Amino acid sequence: MRERDVIKFLSEKLPIGDDCAVISLKKTNLLLTTDMLHRQTDLPDGMTPYTMGWRAVAVSLSDIAAMGGRPLGVVIALGAPEFERKFLEELLDGALACCDVCETKLLGGDTDRHSELTIVTTALGEAQKPVMRSGAHPEELVCVTGDLGRTAAALELLKAKEYEQANALLRFTPRLREGQALAPLASSMIDISDGLVRSLYQLGEASQVGFKIDATAVPFALEVEELARTQDELFEMGLFFGEDFELLFTLPQERLLDARRACEFTVIGRVVPKGEGITMQLGPERIVLPDRGYEH
Amino acid sequence: MRERDVIKFLSEKLPIGDDCAVISLKKTNLLLTTDMLHRQTDLPDGMTPYTMGWRAVAVSLSDIAAMGGRPLGVVIALGAPEFERKFLEELLDGALACCDVCETKLLGGDTDRHSELTIVTTALGEAQKPVMRSGAHPEELVCVTGDLGRTAAALELLKAKEYEQANALLRFTPRLREGQALAPLASSMIDISDGLVRSLYQLGEASQVGFKIDATAVPFALEVEELARTQDELFEMGLFFGEDFELLFTLPQERLLDARRACEFTVIGRVVPKGEGITMQLGPERIVLPDRGYEH
Repeated sequence: MRERDVIKFLSEKLPIGDDCAVISLKKTNLLLTTDMLHRQTDLPDGMTPYTMGWRAVAVSLSDIAAMGGRPLGVVIALGAPEFERKFLEELLDGALACCDVCETKLLGGDTDRHSELTIVTTALGEAQKPVMRSGAHPEELVCVTGDLGRTAAALELLKAKEYEQANALLRFTPRLREGQALAPLASSMIDISDGLVRSLYQLGEASQVGFKIDATAVPFALEVEELARTQDELFEMGLFFGEDFELLFTLPQERLLDARRACEFTVIGRVVPKGEGITMQLGPERIVLPDRGYEH
Repeated sequence: MRERDVIKFLSEKLPIGDDCAVISLKKTNLLLTTDMLHRQTDLPDGMTPYTMGWRAVAVSLSDIAAMGGRPLGVVIALGAPEFERKFLEELLDGALACCDVCETKLLGGDTDRHSELTIVTTALGEAQKPVMRSGAHPEELVCVTGDLGRTAAALELLKAKEYEQANALLRFTPRLREGQALAPLASSMIDISDGLVRSLYQLGEASQVGFKIDATAVPFALEVEELARTQDELFEMGLFFGEDFELLFTLPQERLLDARRACEFTVIGRVVPKGEGITMQLGPERIVLPDRGYEH
């Protein structure tokens, strides 16, 4: 089975379909999310242990951010064939530093012998009103925080042995502040873990809507614009590659001013009826964006 | 580094040292725990996908039980080189069945390509008064629920191709009911995931006490008594092997009657001052129990 079929199969059996599991308590909702990173696909050669630890924590906190949540804590589990003290120390320092920046705590850790280096992080958060993927309506604005393609650019830089710049790009700060500021305003939200286009499809499916994106409005990261030699490469890195962990959200037009006061973001298009599909205006052309992205 | 050194190193950096991370909310405490099972050490040949799913959930719920908690939900993440529909379906059925028995819900699932089969489960629970590992005092009683050595026996049965009986033994029911019933009474508690002796050392270290165990009182599982050919084998399977997930707890003598009304268990010894170490009375001899167990 392909990953997408697996997810579809799981979603028939389980209440999945958002960035976190939501557990209602009396006065708030708990948000729970687990992520698994492993050597082959997520921890390439040249990524420092510090960056690995940072990123493992950041990936899970990004899921909390995507629902407008406040983090309550993170636990980390590490599987490796061998544990070297220096490696472990640096990795933990990275994880702790990311927790610090996000004003949360690393609450626990566990290790396990494992043939492939594997880092599992679990984040717990809370949100009085979690922002789901399912609340978008036609006519609303489509927006993203930050810029796109940083991880794709970082991997290119790793290949070119530009380790320092690459690692700096890989240590993204989860958009917790933005997520919380947008929570009362956004009608739907998701983090861009599988690429902008795949995330649009996920949002579209949950909300039963389509999207029309304006290519000229999409904020590509400077590094991507420098590295990409053709428009195809630019789109590949910025629209499809993913692992960017920016927030993609929809906003009723009348809340735009309030949202601008809440945080920085870019309007990249509009929500349209589902029948119109997911398209991008590229000069005079309106192209259909194919439903593909980073499968990991 | 050996696993024990790794844990020691982690515990210097992180607030670990109990079965779950504890997060205080206004009116309750949240309990958070993550476990990673993988093919090589935790999912041997002959274990059915149904048993794998059951056991992955049960291992995490056992950590909630060990703190006297009530489960709020479980999320599961699965890594495998390939996903077959039938395998996934059976695994999920096992996970769902265990959640059912424990009156909790599977709230989310995720999958990931991975060279080695890996199942990661995270359980969230709550407890108004979590039972820590650190509350034991000299003179108190040492007790265990159920009987010991079932997983060790199950692995022997797998080798003998007695698949059905082995899988049944492997699908243990987490001691949630017992944990909650004992929470107001027990002074310290832990689940026996690394073997009785290793768990005694963990409890002893957290509480700064020693233990004196009575060999004749230890409840070995019937299957272990049948399979073990010598006393050494019996002790190996029942005292050191672990993965039993029974609760080990300490109890002030005056609460014994209340505890007997709360659930079934066996008194196996007494808490003693730390200086006396961790020993077992075996006929006329008092032997020192070596600090070793199942490292996984």
